[in-house]
Amino acid sequence: MFTGYPDELTSDLRLRWSRVQSALRAEGADALLIATNVNLFYAAGRVFMGFVYLPAEGVPRFFVRRPVGLRGDTVADVRKPEQIPDLLRDAGLVLPRRILLETDELTHSEWLRLSSVFSDATAADGSALLRRCRSIKTPYEISIMKMTGSRHAAVIPQYAAVYEPGMTDQAWSVEMFHLMLKAGSLGLFRIAGNSMEGFMGTVLAGDNGGAASPYDFALGGAGLHPSMPVGQSGVRLTSGMAVMVDIAANFYGYLTDCTRTFSIGPLAPQARDAHQVALEIQHAIAAAGVPGARCEDLYALALARASEAGLADCFMGLAQKAKFVGHGTGIVINEQPVLGARSTDTLAAGMCIALEPKFVIPGSGAVGVEDTFLVTPQGMQTLTPCDPAIIEL
Amino acid sequence: MFTGYPDELTSDLRLRWSRVQSALRAEGADALLIATNVNLFYAAGRVFMGFVYLPAEGVPRFFVRRPVGLRGDTVADVRKPEQIPDLLRDAGLVLPRRILLETDELTHSEWLRLSSVFSDATAADGSALLRRCRSIKTPYEISIMKMTGSRHAAVIPQYAAVYEPGMTDQAWSVEMFHLMLKAGSLGLFRIAGNSMEGFMGTVLAGDNGGAASPYDFALGGAGLHPSMPVGQSGVRLTSGMAVMVDIAANFYGYLTDCTRTFSIGPLAPQARDAHQVALEIQHAIAAAGVPGARCEDLYALALARASEAGLADCFMGLAQKAKFVGHGTGIVINEQPVLGARSTDTLAAGMCIALEPKFVIPGSGAVGVEDTFLVTPQGMQTLTPCDPAIIEL
Repeated sequence: MFTGYPDELTSDLRLRWSRVQSALRAEGADALLIATNVNLFYAAGRVFMGFVYLPAEGVPRFFVRRPVGLRGDTVADVRKPEQIPDLLRDAGLVLPRRILLETDELTHSEWLRLSSVFSDATAADGSALLRRCRSIKTPYEISIMKMTGSRHAAVIPQYAAVYEPGMTDQAWSVEMFHLMLKAGSLGLFRIAGNSMEGFMGTVLAGDNGGAASPYDFALGGAGLHPSMPVGQSGVRLTSGMAVMVDIAANFYGYLTDCTRTFSIGPLAPQARDAHQVALEIQHAIAAAGVPGARCEDLYALALARASEAGLADCFMGLAQKAKFVGHGTGIVINEQPVLGARSTDTLAAGMCIALEPKFVIPGSGAVGVEDTFLVTPQGMQTLTPCDPAIIEL
Repeated sequence: MFTGYPDELTSDLRLRWSRVQSALRAEGADALLIATNVNLFYAAGRVFMGFVYLPAEGVPRFFVRRPVGLRGDTVADVRKPEQIPDLLRDAGLVLPRRILLETDELTHSEWLRLSSVFSDATAADGSALLRRCRSIKTPYEISIMKMTGSRHAAVIPQYAAVYEPGMTDQAWSVEMFHLMLKAGSLGLFRIAGNSMEGFMGTVLAGDNGGAASPYDFALGGAGLHPSMPVGQSGVRLTSGMAVMVDIAANFYGYLTDCTRTFSIGPLAPQARDAHQVALEIQHAIAAAGVPGARCEDLYALALARASEAGLADCFMGLAQKAKFVGHGTGIVINEQPVLGARSTDTLAAGMCIALEPKFVIPGSGAVGVEDTFLVTPQGMQTLTPCDPAIIEL
């Protein structure tokens, strides 16, 4: 492992490796070769250009292409992945016969190259296994998520102070991004999947809350330009609008998700009532969200509450609806599990889940809430503690 | 094509298709299936979740999964790519026998799925062909690049006004990001390649200009956190430091690249001299950069000038050096071609190239310049017109 890490991180990385190694053995794999940034950060505690080779038993090996000068136990410089087998042999290791690669993250051309590195091995998918492992946070990761959520929650009350009457959603979003960066966010918004993109988050004002997007976020928004059709649309903020602010925070490479609803003057009663229903749904899911709870049941619970309130038609969108009410978050904003209708996942202690019941009320806009929660035996604990009430401007 | 486009875009898209179709025929391919955002934006004028099917002859077909409600000629909604063959048959088209897919952008799992969509077809790489086509901008793209460069250049003179003595590189970077967003930049910084990441750009102060990074940028910087080890490092700006500000602009989905060097008080003479050499190198490459010029020759020219000036050791980095002095830019920051030692590319009219000769002077920091240029028969024309001299703070 790389030198210079604090002891807590060192021992936490050992825990991550042992969890992944258990999963490797359960799948009958000899080793996993990691090559993409999200999983490198997870397995090595930092991003580098290179590879982590994790055998099903024993210590991982780190093969570094860049930057120059990275040192540590079982760390070696390489120019290309084809050097790895010889380096493993030199270390006295038996080469794998069944190797897992990141099928969902590697490009096809990368996969072709890496799957040829071990000439006697068959290559199979390691992405699902890594997503599963990453979904249950280790103690160090939980401490990072808590610190991130706490700093995230401290930024949100500042948003109202940078609002000025007559602003566009874009102008306000820029001031809020500025606050988040000033608070120390790295800004980088990592998302899994080629079809997903975004900047730091979205600000959905009025009817733009119901605008359909190509991306699989809870709500979309038309966006400012066809090259990035999501989020704020350049609309002027006017009286009676709900404005949903969903800006992620990334202080240490882990993302927390938190949405608050603002209103320009008072909102229509229907929108206020829907917001209240969203809070109740979030509360109900958080209470029911103990280890072992089925994700599809939690989604069904949300849908049932929305239906009871007569709000099924505008739950999670209008013409285009998100089919989930929550999702894991961590190194990427869309970690496992998904709290959706077809999920086969169950909750486990240590998962970090963004719960985001939202409604789109025609004439008002999007209302609702999102917080990041930690799954514990007592239910879900919020990591983003700040007042969920509508903030009237 | 989708409805609602201005005529200039419509006719420009037809030009893009015809260029790609010529390349398809030259490669003996029957069709190209595009599924990732950068190429969707190039081929369809907007991002959507779905597919562009471009046959070697005839009109393209657009298959949309999301958002709901996209309409136009030869546009059809689909739930999954497996519906495409039937929809093509229904339109009277012959199915392809040799189909190109985005080998360098699709994940391996996406490639496996899409390569099975046409059961009688063999799949081959379309990424290189698309990169080649994208490297030569169309008239509409050139107009976008010009507008972007002009707006980009107008932001840079504002950077000095948000500097305050005693600031860290991070604090200043946040104020400059704010200015760029206030000017209307979308913020999104698209990069090709799994190993490449970044926020809006980098601010390299003092010795951090020479810090090695995992990413293949011209210069790196240690970064603020091991999860994103690139750029500003949290160092306080003190007298005698060179500060290299390299923040990209994205107003319309196309990126221009422009770097300016600032100094905290006066710089050491060696750093000032090296900056002057960088300006001369950029000028020499721009003059030599006519259609037909070989990229490796332009890089050799830069290296020769740096050597003549006795600055080869600190050209493009110290312990870790970038092996290029320029690169294409457009929808992604790292388009083709690369002006590097092993490039086999030649320039063509319509290419947009960021030229970035830079030196790292120990004790001072990074100096040099970067501008985005358009290749014309008269040489390279700058698209980011602003004073390249060191800006002393």
